[in-house]
Amino acid sequence: MKELDVAHLQRRLADFAAARDWQPYHTPKNLATALSVEASELVEIFQWLTPQESERVMDDPDTAHRVTDEVADVLAYLLQLCEVLDIDALAALDAKIDRNEKRFPVPGTD
Amino acid sequence: MKELDVAHLQRRLADFAAARDWQPYHTPKNLATALSVEASELVEIFQWLTPQESERVMDDPDTAHRVTDEVADVLAYLLQLCEVLDIDALAALDAKIDRNEKRFPVPGTD
Amino acid sequence: MKELDVAHLQRRLADFAAARDWQPYHTPKNLATALSVEASELVEIFQWLTPQESERVMDDPDTAHRVTDEVADVLAYLLQLCEVLDIDALAALDAKIDRNEKRFPVPGTD
Amino acid sequence: MKELDVAHLQRRLADFAAARDWQPYHTPKNLATALSVEASELVEIFQWLTPQESERVMDDPDTAHRVTDEVADVLAYLLQLCEVLDIDALAALDAKIDRNEKRFPVPGTD
Repeated sequence: MKELDVAHLQRRLADFAAARDWQPYHTPKNLATALSVEASELVEIFQWLTPQESERVMDDPDTAHRVTDEVADVLAYLLQLCEVLDIDALAALDAKIDRNEKRFPVPGTD
Repeated sequence: MKELDVAHLQRRLADFAAARDWQPYHTPKNLATALSVEASELVEIFQWLTPQESERVMDDPDTAHRVTDEVADVLAYLLQLCEVLDIDALAALDAKIDRNEKRFPVPGTD
Repeated sequence: MKELDVAHLQRRLADFAAARDWQPYHTPKNLATALSVEASELVEIFQWLTPQESERVMDDPDTAHRVTDEVADVLAYLLQLCEVLDIDALAALDAKIDRNEKRFPVPGTD
Repeated sequence: MKELDVAHLQRRLADFAAARDWQPYHTPKNLATALSVEASELVEIFQWLTPQESERVMDDPDTAHRVTDEVADVLAYLLQLCEVLDIDALAALDAKIDRNEKRFPVPGTD
């Protein structure tokens, strides 16, 4: 059975780049920039849609494929950036949610 | 021991948004846009750095914290977008690496 | 009376950067990146608004100031990029509209 | 002789959109988003270049054309956004430079 966790994908991405001698291009600055370019390609799919149309974006197979592909590209650069900077993305998010729970308390609780 | 996988974080993010009645704001269009805004906040840290300076961005604790925080924000919106669109981000990336291995063959192999 | 055309503003921006020895930072790559970061700061103002709310963004003086300020930042980096690359932005846009008029003919004409 | 100022181009863009019934798509939110998408397409040209390579981006005619075209697209959406929000982009930038001259005094002067 296929192992599919973040560490495994990060390893595949690192091997992929190394096999093609792409590491010199993969400075943190370039990877962050590439991440933002891919994020904008994702936004481009939605840019002229109404909020309601954007809810149905997966109904069309071609658009669904395009969205999924851009999601993959964003994640690819995010994980490669985390690899070169030695950041644990999941731990970073977990800690951020902890902080946000304090920063934005649920109304009516405390 | 703390479970720290993508599905768990996605659940925490969904619960967090639901508890604050933020779902109406979380259209796919808005989440994709917020993702790109966070990606740019990450880029902002690097924008005036040389490639070499960008390699050392984690040496300063304050900058390291800022980078880690923006990584968390990008991942948060990416996972929330995947949640509302029912996209498996890890499977999407795995499939994308498969395609890229065909698209960019390693020089000197085949 | 104050002269307020693109060439004059481009000159002010160049003098401003030169007086502060900022030209080494103003590579085309960095200026394009800074432009995109400022464009995202503009988007951030709109990211959770409905289309209708976005129409009324200038009604609140503080938000109006923020929008105007981000517009200025985007234009500043665009003009500085054009300066270092020797691009005439107005001529580029004029030529682009010409091309778009052919690419997107008005329905019911020809 | 061709008149080529910002007001004239803004008029051409407004007529162009009106003739194609595109105004419903041109909410401030969508125009700001489209602006950021075009800014990222400009960045994409530079993303893997060294600072030095980015200085020579206009040497290749095809790349020069692509850069000029993306500059036009960014300016087009910026002017359309200013049109719908009734912002004077040149006055905004002029005022911003005034503020920046106070915010970033030239070293050794006062």
